[in-house]
Amino acid sequence: MLIHSASQLVTISGGPQRGVDLGRLGIIPNGAMRVQDGIIADIGITDDLLEKYPDEPHVDASGRVVMPGLVDPHTHVIWAGDRAAEFELRLEGKTYLEILASGGGILSTVQATRLASREELAVQTLARLNRMLALGTTTIEAKTGYGLSQDSELKMIKVLVELARKGPWDLAITYLPAHAIPPEYKDDADGYCKELAEAWLPEMKSWWQANAADLPLPFVDVFCETGAFTLEQTDLILRAAIAEGFPVKIHSDEFDNLGGTTLAVRLGAASADHLVAASYRDIEALGESNTVAVALPGTPFGLGTSDYAPGRAILAAGGILALASDLNPGTSWCESMQMAIALGCRQMKLTPSQAIAAATINAAAAIGKDGEVGSLEIGKQADFLILDVADYRHLGYRYGGNLVAEVYKRGIQVYSASGGSL
Amino acid sequence: MLIHSASQLVTISGGPQRGVDLGRLGIIPNGAMRVQDGIIADIGITDDLLEKYPDEPHVDASGRVVMPGLVDPHTHVIWAGDRAAEFELRLEGKTYLEILASGGGILSTVQATRLASREELAVQTLARLNRMLALGTTTIEAKTGYGLSQDSELKMIKVLVELARKGPWDLAITYLPAHAIPPEYKDDADGYCKELAEAWLPEMKSWWQANAADLPLPFVDVFCETGAFTLEQTDLILRAAIAEGFPVKIHSDEFDNLGGTTLAVRLGAASADHLVAASYRDIEALGESNTVAVALPGTPFGLGTSDYAPGRAILAAGGILALASDLNPGTSWCESMQMAIALGCRQMKLTPSQAIAAATINAAAAIGKDGEVGSLEIGKQADFLILDVADYRHLGYRYGGNLVAEVYKRGIQVYSASGGSL
Repeated sequence: MLIHSASQLVTISGGPQRGVDLGRLGIIPNGAMRVQDGIIADIGITDDLLEKYPDEPHVDASGRVVMPGLVDPHTHVIWAGDRAAEFELRLEGKTYLEILASGGGILSTVQATRLASREELAVQTLARLNRMLALGTTTIEAKTGYGLSQDSELKMIKVLVELARKGPWDLAITYLPAHAIPPEYKDDADGYCKELAEAWLPEMKSWWQANAADLPLPFVDVFCETGAFTLEQTDLILRAAIAEGFPVKIHSDEFDNLGGTTLAVRLGAASADHLVAASYRDIEALGESNTVAVALPGTPFGLGTSDYAPGRAILAAGGILALASDLNPGTSWCESMQMAIALGCRQMKLTPSQAIAAATINAAAAIGKDGEVGSLEIGKQADFLILDVADYRHLGYRYGGNLVAEVYKRGIQVYSASGGSL
Repeated sequence: MLIHSASQLVTISGGPQRGVDLGRLGIIPNGAMRVQDGIIADIGITDDLLEKYPDEPHVDASGRVVMPGLVDPHTHVIWAGDRAAEFELRLEGKTYLEILASGGGILSTVQATRLASREELAVQTLARLNRMLALGTTTIEAKTGYGLSQDSELKMIKVLVELARKGPWDLAITYLPAHAIPPEYKDDADGYCKELAEAWLPEMKSWWQANAADLPLPFVDVFCETGAFTLEQTDLILRAAIAEGFPVKIHSDEFDNLGGTTLAVRLGAASADHLVAASYRDIEALGESNTVAVALPGTPFGLGTSDYAPGRAILAAGGILALASDLNPGTSWCESMQMAIALGCRQMKLTPSQAIAAATINAAAAIGKDGEVGSLEIGKQADFLILDVADYRHLGYRYGGNLVAEVYKRGIQVYSASGGSL
């Protein structure tokens, strides 16, 4: 298949983009791309490729942007129930305690998720993944963390493994039993951490090798925050994970600075995520490391606060900055990386080209998939979007809608705006 | 036609909602509605209506919300060109003067719009109206104001009249040659205002009576702001408009407080729009009037600023608060009233029910159409949405996507998510 005559073929070639180099889009005007067996086989200008491959089936992208599929490297996409009532209570001025008393908060999602069958969880998650695909997100990180018991966390893992095999999206699975202290351990957080480190993690490793060896080992993640896990607890859990061979991530500095970001760098974590309260020293550490700095502008936006991750400071320090949605039922039910880009521009003062690179190649790096997706280069997966605009800068500039006309995953059309979603 | 089994039939009955009464949604659980000849003929609970009208064709809305079509009472939907490059320059830190020097700013849109043919303008505007329809907006206010010459403003009016007749949307047309001082008058703003008041307005009145008498007279609007029109100039233009019989509106207090809001109330304007810099006295005046307070949260969001219209203060004063998108190519290219609702909740601390009433019945009041649209009541137009959720609060709670499954205008399906847009 030959996609040709793109007004801009946005390649984002050359690997993850560090520091102020962020935003190199490698645009080929009047660009073309040949896809074979789901892989990008050639790339160049339209005249050359039409001459080289005259008999290939054609897709005419005249007047449109062709770009890599968006990558969302931080989501809590699997859960049961919703918290719409809690959202309203919060706006009516109810306090956190009143909301808890009326059944709100993260533990209400834990309760609904524990009660849900695998089938119910799969149906609800599938609907979200399909909407994300229609909004142009072709590779998605997905965390457990609303089970908080070994059985229900495993139930979430099983559903995610099933959805990862089903596709067409690529899923990067993350095991996050350290998302909150489960009610059963509310007076013994250390005991929970010890249980995780000594039993759940080795048992997850064995389960994975026996049941999901076709997929890469999941990430292990910890929510390092006041009210969740301390720095010492985070360190304990992640060292145990690393000893088992799991790659790791940390939710750090969302509200309070506990030192999670610098720990992420020290442990060689794939990413440190949130970073709103990161210190100058944390940012310097990120700048000297390969730990990707994942900003989640939907979270402060969702909460109606005004503190965003210091994107420009991270770039000035030389960090690898990525964007993600943080899709979750509490603080930010947003399935659109186009929205994350629009927020990154307005609230973090990224340019559209920076935000786009942060939402593709750097986002892929945050989940260890930058060798396969996140750019349009020979040998990579043919995951790409055709936008209904002639200039990439409309991403960011426009917001609240969907600029995607067509989505292709491994060379196959999986969404078309004119034909509805598959 | 009988739409039945809605989990919530959101009627928003009883007319515009003033002050802290905002948010009465008049929800009928398991609701049903009979539509005849494009008008709502009956409304009630499903069992009753199924028994009364057993032979009517049925639409099953089980597990879904049925609500009035959204009304967008402030847009600049008609223009040519775009300002994506300017958006990028702004984020790169370029100054306003540098942007002007590189061809940016409102006058670049004026130049493109003056050069565009009626056909080009119609095609670009039609695409936007169709996207708005797919996002659930069935009634749309549309302003001229990028022509700024009598001919090009008339060209915009002609396109809008043509699009209003074409439908399926209802358009409320607004004549806004007082959007900016045209380059030809840059040293003679008073002369421009005199020309408008003494020649353009009476001539527009005559043109309308001869060519568009099937449509209500347009609103006349003025951008009362530092760098645009002074309070005295606004007063002069609007008094002339009122003398000709035009209903009027004012863009007031977007950045600076020039007194436009209180003038709007004194003149009996249909609405005062923006209101970010409104004073306590302005808000009190709105509270005692029928002038609708139109908040445009997309504008500060689009600009990345943190000052929003004081929605709760307007409610406390007893004002009639509406939401609008302010869709325009400079500060806020957003076609989604769902996004305006999400912003109203997060940035103005409205509850979902308040934001929904502000985006339907009160928005209709801002353009004098609350007798026809904006609620689901017997005798009103059957303009309604079927949302792909069971609880209205998902509007506001979720953002960045499209919760609309189906859109009906005058009883006819004009959009379906599964079948693409018409």
